[in-house]
Amino acid sequence: MGQPVSMVEQWRGGRLECRHVGHAVIVDAKGGIVESWGDPGAVIYPRSSCKMLQALPMVESGIADHAGLTTEQLALSCASHRGAEIHTARVGRWLADLGLGESALRCGSHWPGDIPERDRLIIAGETPCQIHNNCSGKHAGFLTFTKHLRAGPEYVDADHPIQRAIRQAFEEVTGEESPGYGIDGCSAPNFATSVLGLGRAMARYAGAEGGDARSDAMVRLREAMMKHPELVAGEGEADTELMRAAAGKAAIKGGADGVHIAILPEHGLGIALKIMDGSDKAREAAIASLLVRLGVIEAGHPAVIRRLQPEMRNWRGLVTGGLRISPEFQ
Amino acid sequence: MGQPVSMVEQWRGGRLECRHVGHAVIVDAKGGIVESWGDPGAVIYPRSSCKMLQALPMVESGIADHAGLTTEQLALSCASHRGAEIHTARVGRWLADLGLGESALRCGSHWPGDIPERDRLIIAGETPCQIHNNCSGKHAGFLTFTKHLRAGPEYVDADHPIQRAIRQAFEEVTGEESPGYGIDGCSAPNFATSVLGLGRAMARYAGAEGGDARSDAMVRLREAMMKHPELVAGEGEADTELMRAAAGKAAIKGGADGVHIAILPEHGLGIALKIMDGSDKAREAAIASLLVRLGVIEAGHPAVIRRLQPEMRNWRGLVTGGLRISPEFQ
Repeated sequence: MGQPVSMVEQWRGGRLECRHVGHAVIVDAKGGIVESWGDPGAVIYPRSSCKMLQALPMVESGIADHAGLTTEQLALSCASHRGAEIHTARVGRWLADLGLGESALRCGSHWPGDIPERDRLIIAGETPCQIHNNCSGKHAGFLTFTKHLRAGPEYVDADHPIQRAIRQAFEEVTGEESPGYGIDGCSAPNFATSVLGLGRAMARYAGAEGGDARSDAMVRLREAMMKHPELVAGEGEADTELMRAAAGKAAIKGGADGVHIAILPEHGLGIALKIMDGSDKAREAAIASLLVRLGVIEAGHPAVIRRLQPEMRNWRGLVTGGLRISPEFQ
Repeated sequence: MGQPVSMVEQWRGGRLECRHVGHAVIVDAKGGIVESWGDPGAVIYPRSSCKMLQALPMVESGIADHAGLTTEQLALSCASHRGAEIHTARVGRWLADLGLGESALRCGSHWPGDIPERDRLIIAGETPCQIHNNCSGKHAGFLTFTKHLRAGPEYVDADHPIQRAIRQAFEEVTGEESPGYGIDGCSAPNFATSVLGLGRAMARYAGAEGGDARSDAMVRLREAMMKHPELVAGEGEADTELMRAAAGKAAIKGGADGVHIAILPEHGLGIALKIMDGSDKAREAAIASLLVRLGVIEAGHPAVIRRLQPEMRNWRGLVTGGLRISPEFQ
C-alpha cells in the first residue's frame, strides 16, 4: 500500500495539534482517474459507504418492485440512520409488511444517535431494539430479498444467497475481484476493494442513465438517497445536511472508520476517500472540501462550514482553533 | 517536527483497516531518554494530561494546605472526571466551602459521561451545569488558588496570576520554555511543550522523594491520584482501571486529542505520548502497551485487555477484528 497524504489538520493556538492522512480519488464515468491523493490502489473496507451497492441486487433483480418498495424504503436501504422516530417507525412498518418481527433482524441493538428518541427510551425505562440500529433499513432490505428467495434466516452469512449476489454485483461495479471481506458492525459481510474500486463504483452510479436493469437500479437508488436525505442519516448529520445543500447534485454516504463517498450525476463523477485513522470528523471535512472544490456546494454553506470547522469552539463558546485542509489535499 | 511512527493498528477480516501514528518517550528521573519513538522533540499541547502540573503551584505554595484540601480534592484537581455523583457532590461541596457557587466556574457545561447521572438529569428534565464538566475539579483548585491570592474572577485569562504561576512551574518542570499556549476545551490556557518536555516533567514526578516544597508537592499529587483513581476519571475509564491495576506503581492521565502520560515512582520513569490523529482508543492502547512492557501491569489484566482490544466485537458480540500494537512500537 502506498503512503497516504495529509488531508485534514487540527490547529489550536496557532500550532498544528492533529493530522489526518488518507487516500482519495475522483473517478469519471468511464472509470478513469480524474485526480487522486495518496494511493488509489489502497485496499479498504468501504463499511457503510457502500450500502447502495449492497442494495443493488435487490433492486436490479426486480425484487424491490415485486415487494412494492417505495423511494423511502430504497433510501432506508442505503441509510446509516440516527434511530429517530422517522426511521424506526418506517422500518417497523416495513418488517410488519414482511410479516416479520424485530427478532428477524441480525444487526444487533445500540442506543440511537437521535437525542429525542434516546431520551424517550430513558424516561420510559426502555432499552433500544434492533430497529434502532443505524443499519436496520439495510437489513430490512436484506430481509425483503431473503423472503423473495425463500432463503434461510441467517442472511448475514457470507455464503447466504443474498450475500453471494451482493459480492457478485460489488465486484462487477467496482471492477475488481474483492480480496475478501470483514464482518461489519451490523454483522453483514463487508467486501474489501481499493479506494479506486470504490470510486469507480460511485462513478458508475453517477453516470448511470437507465436503459438496463442495473443502470435503472443505480439511478433509482441514487435518486432515492437524494430525495430523502433525512432518511439516509438524520437531522444534524453530515450526509443529510450535505445532500440538502447539494440539492440534487450529489448522493453522499459516510462509513465507519474514515470512509466517505459521493455520487455526482450532473458531473458524471464518483468520489471515494479513506482517512487512515478512521476519524469521522476528518472524513466529513475531507468530503465537504472535495464537494466545494468541484462546485457542488458553495464554500460558505452552513452544512459545509459545520464540517470544515474553520473555527472550533469550546464549552463556553470560545474559539480554540479550527480544522484546515492540508495543502497537499487542496 | 520529525516523522511520527506507527503505534496502533486496527485489523478486520485479516486486513489492516486503520493506523494511528505518534510520538512517545520514556524518560528517567535525571531527564535522560530511556527510549523514544517518532520525534521526542515534537511540540504538542498536553491537554488534560498535565493537570498535575497545573495543580503544582497551588500545592507547593502551601495554599492547598492553608485551604485544608484533602487527598480527594488533590485528586480531583488532577481529574478529567465523568461527572458522576461521586465527582459532582465533592466539587459542589468544595465550591460551597470556598463560599462560591457554580457560576464562579469558567469551564462551561457539558453532559456528563456517567450514564446514571446523565439519565437522572434527563428524567428530571434538567440540563448539566459547570460542575458536570470533566475539568470542574481542576477549576475548583484554580478558584482555591485565586481566592487565596485575592485575585480577579477571570482565572483562566493567560495573564491571571495563577496562570502565570502555572506557566512558570510548567516550564521549570518540563525543562523547556513553552513556545506558547492554546485555549483548552475548559477555557484554561494549555501550554505547549515537546513530548520530551512532558515526559521529563512526568519523570520528575516519578523521581520526587520529598524534602523541598516542590518535591513534596509532586509526591502528594501523584499519591493522591493513585489513592483515588475513581476520582481522577471514573468507573469504566482507562485511567481509573489502569491505576487500580497498577496498584500504586503508576499515576496515569490521558488528555484530549491523543495525549497520555504515566508517572512510575518505583521505576523512577516518566512516559509521555501523543497520537497524531487524536484518537482516544489509540492513546489508551499505546499507554497500556508501554505499562505492560515496563512490567507495571500484567499483560492479561482485564484493564489492559480492554485497552489493547485484541478482539473487537460488534453489536451482536461477534468478533470483527482487533487492535494490534505496531511492530515499530514494540
